[in-house]
Amino acid sequence: MTQASIITIGDELLIGQVIDTNSAWMAQELSKAGIRVVRRVAVGDVWEEIWTALDEESSHADIILITGGLGPTADDITKPLLCKYFKGSMVVDAGALTNVKNIFENILKRPMIERNLKQAEVPDNCKVILNKRGTAPGMWFQKCINETDHNKKIFVSMPGVPHEMKGMMTDDVIPALKQQFSFPHIAHRTLLTAGVGESFLADLIQDFEEALPADIKLAYLPNYGMVRLRLSATGVDKTTTEARLEQQFTALQVLVKDYLVTNEDLPMQEVVARLLIAGNKTVSTAESCTGGYIASLFTAKAGASAFYIGSVVSYSYTAKENLLQVDKNILETLGAVSEEVVIQMAKGALKNIQADYTIAVSGIMGPDGGTEDKPLGTVWIAVGNTHHIIAKKMQFRFDRQRNIELTATNALNMLRSFILEQEASAIKSK
Amino acid sequence: MTQASIITIGDELLIGQVIDTNSAWMAQELSKAGIRVVRRVAVGDVWEEIWTALDEESSHADIILITGGLGPTADDITKPLLCKYFKGSMVVDAGALTNVKNIFENILKRPMIERNLKQAEVPDNCKVILNKRGTAPGMWFQKCINETDHNKKIFVSMPGVPHEMKGMMTDDVIPALKQQFSFPHIAHRTLLTAGVGESFLADLIQDFEEALPADIKLAYLPNYGMVRLRLSATGVDKTTTEARLEQQFTALQVLVKDYLVTNEDLPMQEVVARLLIAGNKTVSTAESCTGGYIASLFTAKAGASAFYIGSVVSYSYTAKENLLQVDKNILETLGAVSEEVVIQMAKGALKNIQADYTIAVSGIMGPDGGTEDKPLGTVWIAVGNTHHIIAKKMQFRFDRQRNIELTATNALNMLRSFILEQEASAIKSK
Repeated sequence: MTQASIITIGDELLIGQVIDTNSAWMAQELSKAGIRVVRRVAVGDVWEEIWTALDEESSHADIILITGGLGPTADDITKPLLCKYFKGSMVVDAGALTNVKNIFENILKRPMIERNLKQAEVPDNCKVILNKRGTAPGMWFQKCINETDHNKKIFVSMPGVPHEMKGMMTDDVIPALKQQFSFPHIAHRTLLTAGVGESFLADLIQDFEEALPADIKLAYLPNYGMVRLRLSATGVDKTTTEARLEQQFTALQVLVKDYLVTNEDLPMQEVVARLLIAGNKTVSTAESCTGGYIASLFTAKAGASAFYIGSVVSYSYTAKENLLQVDKNILETLGAVSEEVVIQMAKGALKNIQADYTIAVSGIMGPDGGTEDKPLGTVWIAVGNTHHIIAKKMQFRFDRQRNIELTATNALNMLRSFILEQEASAIKSK
Repeated sequence: MTQASIITIGDELLIGQVIDTNSAWMAQELSKAGIRVVRRVAVGDVWEEIWTALDEESSHADIILITGGLGPTADDITKPLLCKYFKGSMVVDAGALTNVKNIFENILKRPMIERNLKQAEVPDNCKVILNKRGTAPGMWFQKCINETDHNKKIFVSMPGVPHEMKGMMTDDVIPALKQQFSFPHIAHRTLLTAGVGESFLADLIQDFEEALPADIKLAYLPNYGMVRLRLSATGVDKTTTEARLEQQFTALQVLVKDYLVTNEDLPMQEVVARLLIAGNKTVSTAESCTGGYIASLFTAKAGASAFYIGSVVSYSYTAKENLLQVDKNILETLGAVSEEVVIQMAKGALKNIQADYTIAVSGIMGPDGGTEDKPLGTVWIAVGNTHHIIAKKMQFRFDRQRNIELTATNALNMLRSFILEQEASAIKSK
């Protein structure tokens, strides 16, 4: 099976100044195309270390995809290194030059300097990949690693700027790889469970897991109090592979049915979004401790205006009073993190934002602010509509970021259950 | 200089189902401690591939830090593999067993199953690292790679759950590494510029860059229309290294002074937060197209309540009318993405949320919704206070996520300039 390795280049990756989101995206796209990613390696802007990585990764994989180190500044050494590694000479590429000029004249509208023109230089033994979104061209090399090896290894160098790399991968690299290789089919199916731990699930489906054929793999992906289960099948033929996977996936869904949230690989906000859209309903939020995080989850994806109306981020007492009409006395006597306040926040949101459903949250996310009565991680969540609001206290025990994420996911899951119950009782009462 | 390599284990990393945030955090902490991370490698849950990675990385580095693959389920093979790799036998660790029992009895309050007890088993030739936050213990191994090598290589295996790994690194691993090695000092200083591109800066500071001593490195980190410049110095002595770095860093700040936002490695929201706190001022937001993202940036960090009052996420016309009193006629005639609407949003926020300053944004983030008049990526941003509001139109050209991030960063930068001008004119009028 054709194997790929991803090399990301840049000192910033090795001192942790940036999080590498590129290689996750690349791995996803390669995997969809039927190419197995066997390794991902990050190295610094250091000549010997990049060179060694090229040697090593080409011993592990057939396709080596490289990002980063193609900028116009002195710390970017990938291009001259590749030129030397593949024994080429640097030449100006006419297409790349036109592209650089066009970007400066028509998009950036800034005068071009000598250094920018350098971006159009490439080794003469690579196939140039046009960068429609930036000035650094991509480069495609082929090389026989040793005399006896008739399978040429492919090396593709792309810029590290995410949207430039993504454009090249989608428009050029993946289509070209598909032409050159015949890939087996890899199929994945993922479901999401809530309410039980990884070990409990493992016991529940132990017999199923042990009986799985060798070419179908099960993975447990625990996250934010939920566990995703992923089945992956590999086969030569798309139809057969997917049919075999589907059979196992159906059996798995039956086994975990009591804890099943969705049988698609979706984040919780998307599960809720689809429920709302299907029922032609809308939602608003009133967020204190999550500070707009739930709103930003809903609106991160295009099309949110079909079901999402708006939010009040009431981070202070005055915002709770002015925008949600929370009772000042209750705030002062019971505190913002209380059942009464979160219910009043929900009522205020339903009145002022006028969506069908609402979510309200108030809690102590940390690292400070806990008391004996309300320890760190205490959260009140309310969900409801104009007829009925339910509230629940939860207790988390993590760092601020994780507590915010857990609050959001649990609030979304509470709304999901609420909507399903409403629909069920609506059907019953018909 | 002592070198480290980070191995992250898990199929989910190679099919891109999760983004590896662990190794960025680890790299940051190691770098701070004076340990140079030379490589980061991700491999799947595959016996031979993990084994090869252990061999290879121990040829590149002195310290090999491993995360992931320690769960209680069948796909997690790291522990038995390490046991075999270091030629040990599996035994139950009393401390780890007490820990597992305690977590189930007192925190999870769930009955424990056989599989959970397995978590307390470890190879008999490792030093066990107590996991205060979860059931999988950490493991510390030492090994001479070959007969002639007197420097033992260190391998540390930790769980992949971020907060468990972080706790172990901070409490145990880094202190233990510091005891065993004497590290050189690595110092970094980073500044943030706005308004000019990477190539322009490179030209501006070319002489400075070429004159830098060999042990001080300059890196360009472009991001969201800004460029961070990072200087890194390596030396044996902390005081000398930092003094030498400081001298260069001061010179660099003078060279880029016209574009300098801050001389610390801070995200834009933190620069604004510090300005507000220093002046004892507060801010609110009225977000349409960013959907709560600016609010969540402000509130992601503890202590936000000192300066952040709240937000209205007015994702619909009704939310703009009800919560911000935007004129319905103006919405209908000029559309939500217009100077008039964004100014009315700002006024509404100043009136209803009562902070000293406000930010309002309205735009078309994509991928759909553009028109001839208002193409995709058109954004109106307003910032101001009760005396004065300024509005500006910007045009972005990226994908939805990047457009949202660019809108947020530019809005924050506009507020930063506004606050500085206000302060300057306040001083002048005194």
